[in-house]
Amino acid sequence: MKTSRIEETTLVLVGAGNVATRLGIALHRQGFSILQVYSRTLEAAASLAYQTGARPTTSLDELIPDADLYLVSLKDDVLPELIPRIAQGKTNALLVHTAGSIDMDVWKAYTANYGVLYPLQTFSKQREVEFAQIPFLIESNQPQSTQLLKQVAATLSHRVYEATSSQRRALHLAAVFACNFVNHFYDEAAELLRAQDLPFDLLLPLIDETARKVHQLTPREAQTGPAVRDDQEVIRRHLELLHNCPSEQALYRLMSRQIHLYQQR
Amino acid sequence: MKTSRIEETTLVLVGAGNVATRLGIALHRQGFSILQVYSRTLEAAASLAYQTGARPTTSLDELIPDADLYLVSLKDDVLPELIPRIAQGKTNALLVHTAGSIDMDVWKAYTANYGVLYPLQTFSKQREVEFAQIPFLIESNQPQSTQLLKQVAATLSHRVYEATSSQRRALHLAAVFACNFVNHFYDEAAELLRAQDLPFDLLLPLIDETARKVHQLTPREAQTGPAVRDDQEVIRRHLELLHNCPSEQALYRLMSRQIHLYQQR
Repeated sequence: MKTSRIEETTLVLVGAGNVATRLGIALHRQGFSILQVYSRTLEAAASLAYQTGARPTTSLDELIPDADLYLVSLKDDVLPELIPRIAQGKTNALLVHTAGSIDMDVWKAYTANYGVLYPLQTFSKQREVEFAQIPFLIESNQPQSTQLLKQVAATLSHRVYEATSSQRRALHLAAVFACNFVNHFYDEAAELLRAQDLPFDLLLPLIDETARKVHQLTPREAQTGPAVRDDQEVIRRHLELLHNCPSEQALYRLMSRQIHLYQQR
Repeated sequence: MKTSRIEETTLVLVGAGNVATRLGIALHRQGFSILQVYSRTLEAAASLAYQTGARPTTSLDELIPDADLYLVSLKDDVLPELIPRIAQGKTNALLVHTAGSIDMDVWKAYTANYGVLYPLQTFSKQREVEFAQIPFLIESNQPQSTQLLKQVAATLSHRVYEATSSQRRALHLAAVFACNFVNHFYDEAAELLRAQDLPFDLLLPLIDETARKVHQLTPREAQTGPAVRDDQEVIRRHLELLHNCPSEQALYRLMSRQIHLYQQR
């Protein structure tokens, strides 16, 4: 690595989705030079390139070869098949992906210097996020690359950790429960209110408090509601209210049983 | 009602669980006189009575008859059967319960002046909550009682609304999804991390952001993760990680299918 100040590390963003967008803009603001942004669509590539002072490309074969660090944030199910083309000719660079669920070794056969930089957060293009508290999980096949990745992440966040691929896999799955599935239950709740012409924002204080509670109590201690009280009468009436929604009924049953079981542990 | 200032309304708390505790302490602080606290166990009755300057009792037959307002916060599945004994001899009082899932009419056969005061929040005895933003849903069989309940609730919160029993039922069910089920997914996530010796607080920024997001975006817009991207490869690997947890696997499948279906709407 030829740079002295960490912000002189030159970057290429491979991908222009939610993660690449929020991460790219944040790194650009920290003073990193983003040289190029790749996306399959010109619209996405151009939009993120514009926001990060980079040049857009829609072709992996046109990726410049001489940046220091390539941050690859593509859909997890296309990433493995695109890695050979991304790695092609980047012999002096550090290549990392940002996917929680994909092992570091996906790079192994194609390049010498590789790793993972996984920000544990939910990103949407439309919404800015505060990076300072976001845990960054770092892994690399070379100690000096681990150092570099830690330094890059540390320009954004106070919480930078090394994690193995197996720890990151567990974290990613846990994040699906604690974020994606949680958000879907917000959506289920929104549907139930809509049917009664009630505004979703009635639930916001409850949603906020439910999240705040687990800063102080364990989720086990924080559990409330009919299932933990084993209040069969309320459960019966709730299932009745859901009689036209078989999937929601099935979820309700399964969740209530799990809540009850967990309290016995 | 003989009082002029609303805080001169005299109260009895029937129940000393999470809701009664947080509500009773908050009303006591507002200057209301809590005359008595009932609980099945002396320990709970005495503890809440001590915190609210009231006298404890463990017998419903010893409830004083001449308070203005009886706030009944008992487990939903015992409430209906205890109502006749609670109402006995309270002819001049307003009797209300605080249960989201129970119709107002549960009082009808036993007293003339009744209603519901439902605070839409999750309460734990060990944790103080900020009442100012909590929605209070009010219902009563008499207009002047509706007024009284609104005034009592307004001493605690800016968000006091009238709601029918059917609206309240939907809200209560929605709250089970948005709070109780959400909290259980925090617990599932905590278990997944524990198995890898990872601390739960790694997830707190994600949990907080997931809650904050739906202040700005609808839950539908805020949805991220493998299911909404239809990322079958990640889903397959997550199910594999859960191969020893059949209930979690079933939940994962059902949730992913629902998330995918909701996005098609």
